[in-house]
This record gives sequence, C-alpha cells and structure tokens, in this order.
Amino acid sequence: MNSPDAKKQKLQCGDGSDGQINVADTGEFSFSDKPTLDDIRKVQHEFCKERNWDQFHTPRNILLAMVGEVGEVSELFQWRGEVKEGLPDWSEKDKKHLAQELSDVLIYLVRLSERCHIDLPAAALEKIEMNKKKYPAHVVYGSSKKYSEYDLKE
Amino acid sequence: MNSPDAKKQKLQCGDGSDGQINVADTGEFSFSDKPTLDDIRKVQHEFCKERNWDQFHTPRNILLAMVGEVGEVSELFQWRGEVKEGLPDWSEKDKKHLAQELSDVLIYLVRLSERCHIDLPAAALEKIEMNKKKYPAHVVYGSSKKYSEYDLKE
Amino acid sequence: MNSPDAKKQKLQCGDGSDGQINVADTGEFSFSDKPTLDDIRKVQHEFCKERNWDQFHTPRNILLAMVGEVGEVSELFQWRGEVKEGLPDWSEKDKKHLAQELSDVLIYLVRLSERCHIDLPAAALEKIEMNKKKYPAHVVYGSSKKYSEYDLKE
Amino acid sequence: MNSPDAKKQKLQCGDGSDGQINVADTGEFSFSDKPTLDDIRKVQHEFCKERNWDQFHTPRNILLAMVGEVGEVSELFQWRGEVKEGLPDWSEKDKKHLAQELSDVLIYLVRLSERCHIDLPAAALEKIEMNKKKYPAHVVYGSSKKYSEYDLKE
Repeated sequence: MNSPDAKKQKLQCGDGSDGQINVADTGEFSFSDKPTLDDIRKVQHEFCKERNWDQFHTPRNILLAMVGEVGEVSELFQWRGEVKEGLPDWSEKDKKHLAQELSDVLIYLVRLSERCHIDLPAAALEKIEMNKKKYPAHVVYGSSKKYSEYDLKE
Repeated sequence: MNSPDAKKQKLQCGDGSDGQINVADTGEFSFSDKPTLDDIRKVQHEFCKERNWDQFHTPRNILLAMVGEVGEVSELFQWRGEVKEGLPDWSEKDKKHLAQELSDVLIYLVRLSERCHIDLPAAALEKIEMNKKKYPAHVVYGSSKKYSEYDLKE
Repeated sequence: MNSPDAKKQKLQCGDGSDGQINVADTGEFSFSDKPTLDDIRKVQHEFCKERNWDQFHTPRNILLAMVGEVGEVSELFQWRGEVKEGLPDWSEKDKKHLAQELSDVLIYLVRLSERCHIDLPAAALEKIEMNKKKYPAHVVYGSSKKYSEYDLKE
Repeated sequence: MNSPDAKKQKLQCGDGSDGQINVADTGEFSFSDKPTLDDIRKVQHEFCKERNWDQFHTPRNILLAMVGEVGEVSELFQWRGEVKEGLPDWSEKDKKHLAQELSDVLIYLVRLSERCHIDLPAAALEKIEMNKKKYPAHVVYGSSKKYSEYDLKE
C-alpha cells in the first residue's frame, strides 16, 4: 500500500525500533521483523489496561470476538470465487480492508493466548516441528490428503 | 537475535520447562521473543515448499483451513461455561491441546497473509494505532459498548 | 417481540399458509410450524433467481457468507459473559438483531445445502438418530464428556 | 403430513435410496417436507432432556459448539479449490460426511434459537422479506455488490 520507505517511517514499534520490510534476495514476499508477537501482546495489554477493559477480556469473550473477526475476513472473500496469490485483482481499498481484518484476528488471537497464559510463538514453533514429523516430505509430496488417510508405515 | 539452531534448542519444549517464558519483573505473563511472525512465515514457507503444497495454498483454501482451526479452538471451550484467566481449572493435557489449536490458527493466519502479500505485523501495529484513536481512553474507560454507540463528540 | 397473534397474521408462508406459534401445554417454547426448511429453500431460490444471483452462489461462496453470518452472531454474544436462557437481560432491539443474524445463518445454510444437493431436513433427522445411538442416555446421562472419551462397552 | 412413525421409516435412509428427495416437475432440487424446524427442535429437545444435558446448553456453550461444526464444514471444503453445484466430483462418502456436518450446524442453530427463545422459522421469513426490500431485483440484478454500495435512490 505504501512504499517500503514510507511504511518504515510510519511504524513505531513498542520498543522504539522501526518496522522493516524484509525483501529477501529471491524476491520472496516477507513480513516486517517488528513488531514481534510479544510486542503486539504488550501494546494491546497496555491498550486494554488504559481503558479498564481487562474485566471484559475473559477467554470466551475474546474467543467470540475473534470468531467475529474471522467472519469479517470471510465476508471480504465471499463473492469472489477463487482468488489469486497477491490479490492482483483487488482494489487498494479492499486490500487495506483485508489487512485490517487480518490484524484484528491476530490481535484477538494474541490476546486470547495471553489471557490463557499460552506462549503463542513458542507453541507455534513446536506445532510446526510436530507437523514436520507428522507429514514427512517424501510421503506427502504434492498431495493434500488428510493425515489420517496416509499410510505412514509404507 | 538467535541463530536458528539456538532457537530450535530453546523452543523444543513440549512440557514448557525451557520454553523461555518471559516473566517481566511485574509478574505479567509474556510471550517468548522468538519466533517472530516473519520467522513463522519463513519456516512455514519452507515447510510447504518442501512438500510441494504451494499449489493448494490459494487464499480461500487457506482461509477455510483457518476457519476449521478456529472451530477446533471453539470446541475446546464449548461445554465449559465461563473460563478463568490462566485456565486454572484445565488439565495440562487440555492446555497443551489449546496451545496447539491456537498455533494452527496462527500458522494459517500467517500463511494467508503471506499468500495475500499482506505485511501482517506492520498491519497489526497500524490497526492498534487506529484503535487508539477510535477508542480514546477517557471516552471508553470501563465500557464495552460498541464504537458506533459512542458519541465521540461529547 | 410480537404477541403470538400479531406474528401469526404477519407471516405469510411460501405456500400461502400462515405461520402458527405452537405453544405446547407444558409451556415449552416452540417454533412456528411454518415455514418449513423447504419453504425457506424455495423462497430463497426465487429470491436469487429474480436477482440473477445464482452465478455468485457457488458452494464455497455461500459457505464463506455463512461463516460471515456466524461471525455476526458471535459479535452479539462477545462482551456479555455467560448469557441466560431466554435472554432475560437483553433489550428487545438486541433480541431482534440476534433473530436476524440467526436467520441469516439459516438462510445460507439452507442455500448451501441446496447448492450441494443435500436434503438438509432428512440429513438432520438421520444425524439425530445417529446421535441417539452414539450417546445412549444411560451412558451419558448428565455428562458432557466427548464421545471419544466414553467407554461404551462398559 | 405424516405420522411420526411414517416419518421415521421414511427418513432412516443413510444411503439416500428412500429419503423422499422431492424433485419438482421442473427438475429443481428440493428438500423433504419433513421434518420441519419445529420437529427438529422437539426431537433435539427430547434428546437433551433424556440425557440431562440442558444444564450444559447455555446459549454461549451452544454457540461455540455451532462454531465448531461450521469449522468442520469448512474443513471438508478447504483443499478443493472451487466446487461445482451438486458436488459432481465428490465421493459418496464425502457427500455423506458433508450432509452430517451441515446437519450438526442446523441442529445447534435450532437449539441455540430455542435456548434464546427465538422463533427461528418466523424470523427467517421476516428476514427474507426484509432482504426483498433491501435488494430490489431491478437494482441489484446480476450484481454482488454489497448493499451499502448501492445507490438505492437512483
């Protein structure tokens, strides 16, 4: 939406560092290094404390809020048929809107994890490691069959 | 910054024993610093490439997968009535299960953002800044009314 | 929201019969007999045909629309903590809003089933029969444990 | 109208062979006339009472269960790309599975409505009438733009 430089200037992370757009040499799309998941947790934590909103942020309240945001993401995709990587056919306005709704999902996901005392980044890495074992590349290469359908003993 | 190896060692910690749970001096629950959202993106990107799964990872396919995972999180909360912060009444097994399902939501959210070329961490920070303006602390303090219900001109 | 009589007059079902509010002798809350699921299917079918919307109503488009509506239902419940049967603490406006959002879920669920050529009422009855066998009353009485946790051979 | 016994016989038809699929003269796919939404409500009501499950069926518990079932429907569509009307490329087993998951969504939707004392069939008909006014055929013909984007005064 913005040029990388513009975005870099605009973003002020929780710890004072600025957001950087990583573009790998391969041209692979990548995210900014910052904010980290814990940066987001901290900023949102302060945001809620300043508003005295902790009282509303029970786990199930937050979960339902997250479901609501997933619904809003779905609405942006609902009448489009299949959508191409990078959203080349979307307007800038729609892309911006999607970025906001995906952000809302992330913010509530981080908040839900915090309220449940679950270390989300650590858990995610662990889950990916589990997935690597569960879906060995040589067995599942090019197939989308569900795990339960594989005969992993073959 | 840790080397990948250091990170791998640090985070293979299913039992939570050495998962680098950061507890700030205030006793506030916090997340591990690593992996960042871009770390998760990269690891998952490699995971999919090695399995030749990019062909299945169209935005709407990923979105539906994310909806499925949100459903699995919901199932863990469905018969419990209200749940307390920190899940003091949950078994370790259930907490672990929840950590995995929240991770699945995060992994697909990151993947969906990547496939849509949306810089998720930058977008999230921007959204939080928007929220700060939309819900000024002195107006919304202690209230959960929806934004549209506030008279922000008062 | 309305008295039963008022509602009875207002509803004009697809087949020309009028909606009746069934109140069993026990005082048990009940639904109107009409419209049936097939009435809703037919009315919505005509609605879409008149607007030339069938072209947009591919199964996955409808599914995402349904997810969006489930999100809107969730938003109505999100900051309330636990909610009592019959919603005694809700305003008439909020109840009406909920009725509309639940209706949207139903309309898309019916439409999705139609577009998938699935006989939803027949399937639902079959599923309930399956559930009766899966969860025998004498085994599961007063327990919310998941099916997989029961030892049904005991 | 059939007696309950007749209905029971008619609908115990896992293989679809005798499930009274109504095909109108036009060849339009249609649902069975029975069960109605209130039939489903009643059967499920009895089912829960016999198992002493009402205690678990608070509105938000049921809502989260419904979200879980919507997630399971989504999982059936997640890796398929766009799907054709009538699911011609799906196996009988997958179609059957989908019928069951759609049924689960319906059962919980009916149950949620009952527990909230919302007359779901009446509300749905009312909502469709609202939609007819909101989206006049001559304005929205062949367009999927959102309501808010239409200039209905033109």
